Amino acid sequence: MVMARPGKISEAVVRRLPLYLRVLDELAEAGQTKLLSSQELGERAGVTPALVRKDLAWFGEFGKQGVGYDVHYLRSELRRILHLDKEIRIALVGVGSLGMALARYHRRRYLIEPDFNLHIVALFDTDPRKIGEVVDGVPISSLGELPVLVDRLGIRMAMIAVPAEAAQGVADRLAAAGVKAILNFAPVKLKVPPGVHVATADLSGELQCLAYYLDR
Amino acid sequence: MVMARPGKISEAVVRRLPLYLRVLDELAEAGQTKLLSSQELGERAGVTPALVRKDLAWFGEFGKQGVGYDVHYLRSELRRILHLDKEIRIALVGVGSLGMALARYHRRRYLIEPDFNLHIVALFDTDPRKIGEVVDGVPISSLGELPVLVDRLGIRMAMIAVPAEAAQGVADRLAAAGVKAILNFAPVKLKVPPGVHVATADLSGELQCLAYYLDR
Repeated sequence: MVMARPGKISEAVVRRLPLYLRVLDELAEAGQTKLLSSQELGERAGVTPALVRKDLAWFGEFGKQGVGYDVHYLRSELRRILHLDKEIRIALVGVGSLGMALARYHRRRYLIEPDFNLHIVALFDTDPRKIGEVVDGVPISSLGELPVLVDRLGIRMAMIAVPAEAAQGVADRLAAAGVKAILNFAPVKLKVPPGVHVATADLSGELQCLAYYLDR
Repeated sequence: MVMARPGKISEAVVRRLPLYLRVLDELAEAGQTKLLSSQELGERAGVTPALVRKDLAWFGEFGKQGVGYDVHYLRSELRRILHLDKEIRIALVGVGSLGMALARYHRRRYLIEPDFNLHIVALFDTDPRKIGEVVDGVPISSLGELPVLVDRLGIRMAMIAVPAEAAQGVADRLAAAGVKAILNFAPVKLKVPPGVHVATADLSGELQCLAYYLDR
């Protein structure tokens, strides 16, 4: 166990940890036993070696100067820092075409990779025709069952894939039920109480950003 | 027409433009005719008024100090800056469950909002059982037809929703065919030639980031 530096770690740093982890996942799967330099980790993650060293230094001392990182050790430390060393139970609200695709993708990935640990255990929708339908082993429940299921299943994270106008109401219900982290796919900025963290996956916004770079 | 400031505009600035545009879309739809302060625009977009003013100043002078912005004028200027004032034709490669959901979502949004202008006009897959299948009016083509269709349909942007190991090959083919902007959903960093812009929508990475904030 290593000691983290005191002080608040910026979101930009946290956002790069999954990139490093993915590189380490690949190298671990490929059976790499030799030490990994910050140069190589940076190259594979698409950042400079200096930034790799600076980012990791926030969380402790993971390798020896000029020697490198042990792939398996650094991987397990990053998984611990990201809380991915234990199962995280997730609710998905809004089983339309996007919600359905997200549910299937994550359910299958969880089944294939035993230590993926991001586990969708409940699906919710308001459409009475959908309630009771089973998607990859998980039944769709009505939104009214949210508080009971969050509590009973130990759900701490949620994905929102409902239309924009319904998203804030869903976020309120999730926060009230005790969910602490929300990934929002609705194109709207959500307000949540302190202690709840929201990230927005704005797919149309991503396309609009890209359009900026056309003809430049 | 206003003059843009010289110099390179950072990606962080560009990423906020769709947020501002969404606020302006909503206000325009609600029929707002009174001037919009940077305070209100910032509040609705979730950034400080100072940052709103700084971001917009990169592109010109859109409002009078202490008076505010004309909603319709600023909206049309932002749409022009983002190249969203004209139709942008998009190819989507990989019509699995995520690709299918993305295709349907964007096709329907394009039909409902005439000036959304992000138009998926071609779908590609390598699975011979899928080729010829029609999704919301667009047939699925084989990847071999990519160069011809990109050229014939005037496609300049693409979405990649194939498995990680196939994504770089698809990106190479898209770049060779003349596509200039790619939104990548595969969990892998793509290499593209100069002049081609890539954004990554890493949905599992987003969840992994969120997990960091649990129990903190």
